Amino acid sequence: MASSPFDWIDEQARQRERAGLVRTLRPRPAESGLLDLAGNDYLGLTRHPEVTAGAADAARRWGGGATGSRLVTGSTELHAELEHELAAFCGFEAALVLSSGYAANLAAVTALAPHGSLVVSDAGNHASLIDGCRLARGTTQVVPHRDPDAVRKALAAHEGPAVVVTDSVFSVDGDAAPLRGLAAVCRQAGAGLVVDDAHGLGVLGAGGRGAARAAGLAGSADTVVTVTLSKSLGSQGGAVLGPARVVDHLVNAARTLIFDTGLAPAAAGAALAALRVLRREPERSARVRAVASELHELLTDEGHSAVRPDAAVVSVRAPSPEAAVRWAADCRAAGLAVGCFRPPSVPDGVSRLRLTARADLTGAQIADAVHVISRTAP
Amino acid sequence: MASSPFDWIDEQARQRERAGLVRTLRPRPAESGLLDLAGNDYLGLTRHPEVTAGAADAARRWGGGATGSRLVTGSTELHAELEHELAAFCGFEAALVLSSGYAANLAAVTALAPHGSLVVSDAGNHASLIDGCRLARGTTQVVPHRDPDAVRKALAAHEGPAVVVTDSVFSVDGDAAPLRGLAAVCRQAGAGLVVDDAHGLGVLGAGGRGAARAAGLAGSADTVVTVTLSKSLGSQGGAVLGPARVVDHLVNAARTLIFDTGLAPAAAGAALAALRVLRREPERSARVRAVASELHELLTDEGHSAVRPDAAVVSVRAPSPEAAVRWAADCRAAGLAVGCFRPPSVPDGVSRLRLTARADLTGAQIADAVHVISRTAP
Ligand SMILES: Cc1ncc(COP(=O)(O)O)c(C=O)c1O
Ligand SMILES: Cc1ncc(COP(=O)(O)O)c(C=O)c1O
Repeated sequence: MASSPFDWIDEQARQRERAGLVRTLRPRPAESGLLDLAGNDYLGLTRHPEVTAGAADAARRWGGGATGSRLVTGSTELHAELEHELAAFCGFEAALVLSSGYAANLAAVTALAPHGSLVVSDAGNHASLIDGCRLARGTTQVVPHRDPDAVRKALAAHEGPAVVVTDSVFSVDGDAAPLRGLAAVCRQAGAGLVVDDAHGLGVLGAGGRGAARAAGLAGSADTVVTVTLSKSLGSQGGAVLGPARVVDHLVNAARTLIFDTGLAPAAAGAALAALRVLRREPERSARVRAVASELHELLTDEGHSAVRPDAAVVSVRAPSPEAAVRWAADCRAAGLAVGCFRPPSVPDGVSRLRLTARADLTGAQIADAVHVISRTAP
Repeated sequence: MASSPFDWIDEQARQRERAGLVRTLRPRPAESGLLDLAGNDYLGLTRHPEVTAGAADAARRWGGGATGSRLVTGSTELHAELEHELAAFCGFEAALVLSSGYAANLAAVTALAPHGSLVVSDAGNHASLIDGCRLARGTTQVVPHRDPDAVRKALAAHEGPAVVVTDSVFSVDGDAAPLRGLAAVCRQAGAGLVVDDAHGLGVLGAGGRGAARAAGLAGSADTVVTVTLSKSLGSQGGAVLGPARVVDHLVNAARTLIFDTGLAPAAAGAALAALRVLRREPERSARVRAVASELHELLTDEGHSAVRPDAAVVSVRAPSPEAAVRWAADCRAAGLAVGCFRPPSVPDGVSRLRLTARADLTGAQIADAVHVISRTAP
């Protein structure tokens, strides 16, 4: 067979196979019958009738797509309404909606880290923040996980604009960032703080208003928050929340805003409907936290090594990538969907089962899930 | 007033103001009454009843969001169906759907340009390809616009894996890449060819099957195509098309696939419905090309400096950024929406009006548009 420019791919594929790290897509049916502790639908809203009606109505009213960049034809009054309500709910002056949380993080980090600036980034940050750092014109310094003192030292060694970038809740272990400590260090050094609240919105803070609200940082002039519409709000998309001048700056400087088609109306409509349900039913955010605590407690009682959850994610350690894959597969065979995180998706090389709490899980479902996990443990 | 970490933003804002380069969002109503030559709804499908029903039905059946990464819970049978039909339509072995065309380009370029490889990138490429080059581990060499010979020289100077990356139709001027020439040069050097067909799908090739099809490259073992679902298909999202092993590789290696929530079901449903309309009504693709040619001819007859369109985009030069902004505003006041491209969105610093043809424009609408553009010209 003639050689192809992509032959090197096959060698990488063989290496992955040997290491037990092959990933494949498994399309799911609309009704799988599985108990889902793998998705990020924390508040149980993605199939809420008001949310799906929000999507359907928006598609019919506005069309299947936004038809252009937010700067050309892609800003509808629906986008503006969502931005207005999202900013008000989380306690910020302004909001800017993008096509994904990933795009929102690329936008925030690149636009706030110009040439000559410093970005201080937690070692456990999400891939989208890391890619934002790599695309930014400023210099990035990675600091140890959850370490305000290391951040303080990094900032002290720099002259000029600086931002500190952190997940509010880290996606692998579900542990929370020390936001108050980071904010104090930022204030002292005159640095901005960028918080990715993907896993905090809907879960943390009064009525699910997010981690910045919980830490007393909502609306502060030096704090910028990014969120995703794809987890608690059951849709797709992302947003940057902050002072109006920061949002205006992003409109002019963020490439993933300028050169990307606006979020589809259906996604904006679904997220807006979910936000309204959450505002009306704030107890959903307390419930998802209680479910996560209960999951953690029961798993720890049964001897599993699980990280105490600060939000909705509960992480359980597995002895190896192969064992984690087998464990997740055995859970699935027993009717339970759980996430399985392996290298390179884990910062420390330790494979895990990743469980997500949902506000609409019943006590019986929680007990069932824990039973299946224990019964299938390696 | 106390200083803030974002004070430098105000200075940049003042500079933009002085240069006439301030951008603001102008949310539009659902029915604006404007004649739209600004959006990228090339085939007039975004408000097609089958497309909006595709979105609405998918949201009701599958929920408002995909709930997780494609690798966890975010792959539905609907995503698989869209991938299957898209690959078959464009003539490729496999397809992978991502949350945007931007994400698809980041995925394709980063995953196909490993450490030690070379990426040869056209100077006029879209921002998302450029960001892909900047995120890739390989080395990027930028070559002059539409210059296979420069590509050949760049490839000749490199040992190891290499890819050539190009828009099929460049987004600013609407001019086409010399795909056959690039493919020949790639084949000779053993390099892969990555074609961003954002503006070609639905417009070029038999029945809108795209630029790769038109150039005889569809399904070739060394060609990878990215598309967006947000232009001709009237929705949101993107896809990578190519050999199955390339798609499998992306599933394992592309960060914007692994760490991003899957495309919302409504967007997948809308794109799938649009694809089916296009398959049934292939004349839409011929019509949009005819409309673009007619626009160009009439504008040239009236003395405007317009680039001969290779697809649906017609670019008209303006004397300055301020003049372009005023021209576009005067068109809008006269009932016509046109795009206005200014630095930094233009590679050569020349500001333009950017007109997009649509398959559903009538002769009278085209004549009206040309009349307004002429009447308001600076
Ligand atoms: C911490 C964090 N930030 C950002 C994202 C990206 O958001 P999205 O999936 O909406 O692009 C995710 C997950 O998807 C995440 O876990
Ligand atoms: C050439 C080109 N590639 C990629 C994209 C990005 O696609 P999307 O808007 O779906 O993210 C665009 C425009 O938006 C484009 O013009």
